Amino acid sequence: MKWIINEYPIKELATGEVLNLKTYTVHGSPGPHIHIQASVHGAELQGNAVILHLMDLLNSQKMKGSITFIPLANPYATNNKIGTYTYGRFNPVTGHNWNRNYVDIIKESNFNIDEFAKENKDYSWGEIRSKFKAKLEIVFEKYVEDLIQSKKLAENNKLNLLLQQLASKADGILDLHTGPVATRYLYSAEYQEQVAYYLKFRHVVVIPNEFGGAMDEACFMPWIHLRDALKKYKKNISIDIESFTLEFGSEETFCMQNASKDVESILNYMKYKGLLEGTPDQIDSHACRLKNFRTIYSPKGGLVDYHFEPGQRYLKGDTLASFYNLKSIDPKDPIVSCRSKVMAEEDGIVINRCPSSSVHQGMELFQVMTKLEEHGAIK
Amino acid sequence: MKWIINEYPIKELATGEVLNLKTYTVHGSPGPHIHIQASVHGAELQGNAVILHLMDLLNSQKMKGSITFIPLANPYATNNKIGTYTYGRFNPVTGHNWNRNYVDIIKESNFNIDEFAKENKDYSWGEIRSKFKAKLEIVFEKYVEDLIQSKKLAENNKLNLLLQQLASKADGILDLHTGPVATRYLYSAEYQEQVAYYLKFRHVVVIPNEFGGAMDEACFMPWIHLRDALKKYKKNISIDIESFTLEFGSEETFCMQNASKDVESILNYMKYKGLLEGTPDQIDSHACRLKNFRTIYSPKGGLVDYHFEPGQRYLKGDTLASFYNLKSIDPKDPIVSCRSKVMAEEDGIVINRCPSSSVHQGMELFQVMTKLEEHGAIK
Amino acid sequence: MKWIINEYPIKELATGEVLNLKTYTVHGSPGPHIHIQASVHGAELQGNAVILHLMDLLNSQKMKGSITFIPLANPYATNNKIGTYTYGRFNPVTGHNWNRNYVDIIKESNFNIDEFAKENKDYSWGEIRSKFKAKLEIVFEKYVEDLIQSKKLAENNKLNLLLQQLASKADGILDLHTGPVATRYLYSAEYQEQVAYYLKFRHVVVIPNEFGGAMDEACFMPWIHLRDALKKYKKNISIDIESFTLEFGSEETFCMQNASKDVESILNYMKYKGLLEGTPDQIDSHACRLKNFRTIYSPKGGLVDYHFEPGQRYLKGDTLASFYNLKSIDPKDPIVSCRSKVMAEEDGIVINRCPSSSVHQGMELFQVMTKLEEHGAIK
Amino acid sequence: MKWIINEYPIKELATGEVLNLKTYTVHGSPGPHIHIQASVHGAELQGNAVILHLMDLLNSQKMKGSITFIPLANPYATNNKIGTYTYGRFNPVTGHNWNRNYVDIIKESNFNIDEFAKENKDYSWGEIRSKFKAKLEIVFEKYVEDLIQSKKLAENNKLNLLLQQLASKADGILDLHTGPVATRYLYSAEYQEQVAYYLKFRHVVVIPNEFGGAMDEACFMPWIHLRDALKKYKKNISIDIESFTLEFGSEETFCMQNASKDVESILNYMKYKGLLEGTPDQIDSHACRLKNFRTIYSPKGGLVDYHFEPGQRYLKGDTLASFYNLKSIDPKDPIVSCRSKVMAEEDGIVINRCPSSSVHQGMELFQVMTKLEEHGAIK
Repeated sequence: MKWIINEYPIKELATGEVLNLKTYTVHGSPGPHIHIQASVHGAELQGNAVILHLMDLLNSQKMKGSITFIPLANPYATNNKIGTYTYGRFNPVTGHNWNRNYVDIIKESNFNIDEFAKENKDYSWGEIRSKFKAKLEIVFEKYVEDLIQSKKLAENNKLNLLLQQLASKADGILDLHTGPVATRYLYSAEYQEQVAYYLKFRHVVVIPNEFGGAMDEACFMPWIHLRDALKKYKKNISIDIESFTLEFGSEETFCMQNASKDVESILNYMKYKGLLEGTPDQIDSHACRLKNFRTIYSPKGGLVDYHFEPGQRYLKGDTLASFYNLKSIDPKDPIVSCRSKVMAEEDGIVINRCPSSSVHQGMELFQVMTKLEEHGAIK
Repeated sequence: MKWIINEYPIKELATGEVLNLKTYTVHGSPGPHIHIQASVHGAELQGNAVILHLMDLLNSQKMKGSITFIPLANPYATNNKIGTYTYGRFNPVTGHNWNRNYVDIIKESNFNIDEFAKENKDYSWGEIRSKFKAKLEIVFEKYVEDLIQSKKLAENNKLNLLLQQLASKADGILDLHTGPVATRYLYSAEYQEQVAYYLKFRHVVVIPNEFGGAMDEACFMPWIHLRDALKKYKKNISIDIESFTLEFGSEETFCMQNASKDVESILNYMKYKGLLEGTPDQIDSHACRLKNFRTIYSPKGGLVDYHFEPGQRYLKGDTLASFYNLKSIDPKDPIVSCRSKVMAEEDGIVINRCPSSSVHQGMELFQVMTKLEEHGAIK
Repeated sequence: MKWIINEYPIKELATGEVLNLKTYTVHGSPGPHIHIQASVHGAELQGNAVILHLMDLLNSQKMKGSITFIPLANPYATNNKIGTYTYGRFNPVTGHNWNRNYVDIIKESNFNIDEFAKENKDYSWGEIRSKFKAKLEIVFEKYVEDLIQSKKLAENNKLNLLLQQLASKADGILDLHTGPVATRYLYSAEYQEQVAYYLKFRHVVVIPNEFGGAMDEACFMPWIHLRDALKKYKKNISIDIESFTLEFGSEETFCMQNASKDVESILNYMKYKGLLEGTPDQIDSHACRLKNFRTIYSPKGGLVDYHFEPGQRYLKGDTLASFYNLKSIDPKDPIVSCRSKVMAEEDGIVINRCPSSSVHQGMELFQVMTKLEEHGAIK
Repeated sequence: MKWIINEYPIKELATGEVLNLKTYTVHGSPGPHIHIQASVHGAELQGNAVILHLMDLLNSQKMKGSITFIPLANPYATNNKIGTYTYGRFNPVTGHNWNRNYVDIIKESNFNIDEFAKENKDYSWGEIRSKFKAKLEIVFEKYVEDLIQSKKLAENNKLNLLLQQLASKADGILDLHTGPVATRYLYSAEYQEQVAYYLKFRHVVVIPNEFGGAMDEACFMPWIHLRDALKKYKKNISIDIESFTLEFGSEETFCMQNASKDVESILNYMKYKGLLEGTPDQIDSHACRLKNFRTIYSPKGGLVDYHFEPGQRYLKGDTLASFYNLKSIDPKDPIVSCRSKVMAEEDGIVINRCPSSSVHQGMELFQVMTKLEEHGAIK
């Protein structure tokens, strides 16, 4: 197996140091290309452990195709400490969420996809796919060059556009994240839901085939646009390029032992994609449409006792969390007098929760899956 | 003159304290209503000094109509210190820019404005305006109540929706901000550009009649929607409700002496609106369309020497700023070897600049007006 | 049982709100006074849960003496969010650790303790103790008043001096803290080590009878000074006033169920002090002198896999943590090539560890007890 | 002139990058050695501009001796942005002020200075000075090595000890800082006060010959200890090694034009030290003992209107600043009702002030020189 290492400068700091992305690409015999990146949110570390295990395993495997690994895809964010924690979810200068700065490149670049569809509709899907990837490459280069020339390349764009550009050649894009305090879960677009189950996550959030600024969306949108454009010319294709966000547990944690299990998710997907030999399998999962993946915002401020851990199911009427307002204690009945409860309004599963018990009104308390759909035999 | 003071709880903190908005409303004889708020961005303080002067002046004036003042409209943000500076531009928990969380209420609430237009098209504009304000009030109340019931009232919504709701009754909305290190300038929508000049700012940025999340837009959008809906029924109206963002210099500064001049802007607008007697006048101004109001992002990281101050004009080819990279000094020619320059690509005026000389690549260096349009005799 | 509630203003914020301390004091029949405070470090919350349980239990008990509870003793710090975590260990404006701002009041105030000892040496210890407490009260009041008059009352002093002053009347002071990610442990001064074991912590760090800026020290130092002064006049007394720092697990967590066990520690101490009836008992514990309570600073930067959890014992030669440098991966042997290990140099127990796996060189990795001393039958 | 460039690794970041110090040393003909560093506090930038000008000038001068320049002496701190400002005064992880982590190396290392004095008392001062510098070098190396071996080399020590060690060979140490919003001023120890005036600052704060954790003190303390030790053996020497902190205006600013004047201060000192030819001169200055260099802490919270700028004199009774509490406005008399004033209690000069007008109770409002002593003809 052949490895190629590249480095890309992404941010010159005030003191003159330059932060780089380092990409590690492994090539087997011809086959599909997979793009795997971790830690675009600076505190979300577990994906790096998964990458290390995967790189390790590939050295002793026969592989078709190629994979590009980008561990620590946002070093500025991972290095940004305030206190002992990592202030890595959004840019500390601008507030922009690092995973909402990507672009719907087909729209933004004014690339004429209709024309492309018209010109290429009679080719095979394989040929169209190749040509479109090549086009995307050029479109990105021009788009970035224009921003540089006009000094419009902002703080965040550079990193996000580079990642998007690198991923534009891939047949599978895996963006490795974590939640705050979280169980493992997966975001999948509707068009690829059936493939999603090969990633073997027990919890799957199904999102629309639409753009909202995130990496997974930015990577599948060109193909959605292409599919829609080809349809106008009576060419119906089924997109065989996937783009997922994988949430590997809680932020601020890095555990190689857990990663040795986490990696099975990606190995199975590689079998599905034909990079590795063997028959991929699926596990029983819960799916949940995005509109039913609910954020419960804190109705009050206070100290919070969380009663359900991520991954746990709860029923309508359960007390999800108790709030204690320490400024309104009646000492004759101290616990009850200052306590209020957040009750579940319908059945669900806690997917993640706020990592602190000190909570202001309006902060995100929980994200929960409701109106669960069962995939496989799961109950 | 009669003053009414109200308090609105906006955020219960983790320790149980509740932050409030305090509104001061003054009533003269019947007439239009003006809404004036300051410091939605926590570090932008000068508007409060302007409010104090204006409140003071009104006690010795004859006034028609009414004004609601909301100084320190975002106490959570103004109190948020990291170091000696105020981390007040965006929510420190979520990264959301405090002035991008407003909603296009007509759209979001699914209020049927077409039906409203149809039903009311035969009334006079004055009657339609009254009815529409009353409707907006109800729409806001229901919208907020629904969010509370479903625990979707997030960190930021509560404040922003309350401000929007309070402003929905106004005939003029003035949102007082400042830039980072900045000259005084004004944002005006296109539809009200001719009124804007009564605010007597030397620099006017003209924005489209569209929604982008800011207070000024959130306040004029219902009227834009109403105008468009009425047009379908052949009722052509000219919107006489204005909504502006006034930028009173630099953040972190509060100067009563400067405010005694700043207040003339609003006094003149009050004359225009008929709250005060007298003939309003205009000054010579520069206007600039939003697309020509350019942010110059830093092409490099380094220590920056700014060569133009806010308010200064520059010509194409001028050196706007010099960057010094202290890690690449050739000691034989230290200054030249580590310096690079940011040149102006076209004529313009510096409106604001980054308040620090320590700058990472991609940060906002300057905002500049280009392709200046002269209003009045200005050159 | 009679409860008295007091409120003390401690900080007027920029926007005009005043943060207060609220104290809850319960009085039984005559007896000693205990002072219990929590959350001087803003993110250290569990002590508040302990206080709630204790307040609750006291309502159904017969108690001698009195207790003052101060939950959320530093609301400014608890409310200070940067991201979802609480930036509560030190003042965000000045960097001062909130638990290092107390004063050695006898020294700082120039109170002539020699004279006091000389004048009072012939009284009984009980009488001396009373008189000294009364003196301390006056000394504090004058000390604070002088600071106010000379505008030297800084950001931090006000809170810290107030807490110290309130505690100066107590016969037992319990300052409730937590570690970062930590097991439960106790700080005790040498002079009171035998009493410490009544608090039933499995891990006890024994500190010298000296001043280092912390609350526990600030509260016992006057008595150390008094003992030393009396000794000069041949009056040997044994200090029966204790001051401890209790570390109840990890920061950012608040769990009432755990608190129902944590409270047993304080109940047992209350028996020892005679506030509650019953015979206090002790548990087997590990003790460790402060000089053997070691901080292991990170010898490198990297992503860290922690191999021991707080509370776990390890042996010399064990790998405490592994560092992964993701910028120096050899893809042919990815895991080994980028990994380095932090080995234990002697046997010990992990007491707490850094709550993040993203670690810069020089950050605190672990605090460990070494050269363990067994108290009781513990092995 | 010969330049030597060195690089010293000082901090490996979590993502594997290593931050370095870069030193630029210029050698002329034999003579004294000067150490000049800038930006130990990350936001204090102007010293770097001074260094660039000085390096530039030296290329066209005849110089005796040598100078080591360390621009951006704390890259971690300079790069640390929260919002657009630089959070560079203290370590964001630990809260330690970057200029309070130095050590009194003679004390900390247990170096037996008495023995050294005894052994060397009969040598000439020049010889003793040489031997002592050589000793210091060894002492530092061993001290750091011991910390590394025992994993006690914390976050901050590494940088501070390296800077101290590099400076230990110097005959003059200039630590370039700035204030928050500040005029130019100088800290000088008592023993070197007469030399201080050659640095030509208009404002001089005279500090005791004692250790408080700062670089200037850390660098002169070994010589103070040596002088005191020699005195015991009847050897009276006058220390001819100086160590100053130079405050070049306000933080966050970098201005080459101002630096071209600032540099004259150091050029004049170089003449005094004999590195450059020419007769050094002095300017009329104000001096002030440290105990009279007063910090005025904010007696209230509120929005602040500062009435004196740094460098301005004021008289007893002047209003230094006005506070506006926007939560307690009486609208009938809005300005007066919410305003309170901070009056000067004695004559003085404002040296620096808080850079924000949003101020919590207890924050540093001003630092002022009082009880001015005139040096030269100044009034």
